[in-house]
Amino acid sequence: MEDRELMLLALEEAQKAAELGEVPVGAVIARRGEVVASAHNTRETEKNATHHAELIAIDRACRALGGWRLWECELFVTLEPCPMCAGAIVNSRIRRVVYGAKDEKAGCCGSVTDLFALPFNHRPVVESGLLEEESHALLQRFFERLREQRREGSKPKWKKPQS
Amino acid sequence: MEDRELMLLALEEAQKAAELGEVPVGAVIARRGEVVASAHNTRETEKNATHHAELIAIDRACRALGGWRLWECELFVTLEPCPMCAGAIVNSRIRRVVYGAKDEKAGCCGSVTDLFALPFNHRPVVESGLLEEESHALLQRFFERLREQRREGSKPKWKKPQS
Repeated sequence: MEDRELMLLALEEAQKAAELGEVPVGAVIARRGEVVASAHNTRETEKNATHHAELIAIDRACRALGGWRLWECELFVTLEPCPMCAGAIVNSRIRRVVYGAKDEKAGCCGSVTDLFALPFNHRPVVESGLLEEESHALLQRFFERLREQRREGSKPKWKKPQS
Repeated sequence: MEDRELMLLALEEAQKAAELGEVPVGAVIARRGEVVASAHNTRETEKNATHHAELIAIDRACRALGGWRLWECELFVTLEPCPMCAGAIVNSRIRRVVYGAKDEKAGCCGSVTDLFALPFNHRPVVESGLLEEESHALLQRFFERLREQRREGSKPKWKKPQS
């Protein structure tokens, strides 16, 4: 499969997250153009801070391939990875990362910082902007709907921390 | 429990990793001085790049407490967190991180970089050096043994990537 097809699959994953009321981010890991793992953000549904799309996909790819070194793998993700996911990319030796939309608030492939420019023991190739508009539009619609729900006073799926 | 006791538990976790032939790192998450979760590095055993002590402990703490915001929790870890684990600390809103030994190669609380100095939406309090000598000695013994095994030609538990 080509890059664009793989990113379309990542977008389908992001759509699944949106349907759950989750921030719509989706990820696909491929090896030699074949899908090895795919996942979407389930932080709210699973009530788990580690359940970002990329981290789940990396976990699944390690299980699928039976090893922690994903050095032949490429990651396609609709949103620029956060520090946790960028760190997991370094740790798993993923060779190439392709992402859609930039994340000005938490992105670690150039937006807030560029973790891959630091002297860690692995540095992936990074490409950005593939299906950026589609990825961004999905996120924008999600946050617009969230703001509407808040204005209308209906209970959003996001809960404030409890003491 | 006091900080020192919690770090001693993290050291016990690190010892469990050493016994498995894993890089000896252990982590404990506590809330108001009570242990919520503990874990040790199982990257080789589980063949999984995400199986660092801190990430497993954060995953377990979210499951134990039923939410992704660990804002009342403190993390005790024998080695300075890597980018993935430092990112997971930001994502889970852990309020305080206490670590033992510095990690000059991958540490993201000041050694390679300080991720917590960046404008993410959460910044934990960080303290270092608690039981540093003990944490460092455990790592040092592990790597000395690994080098000995390599000199003797016996097969280490670490495998090279396969094509």
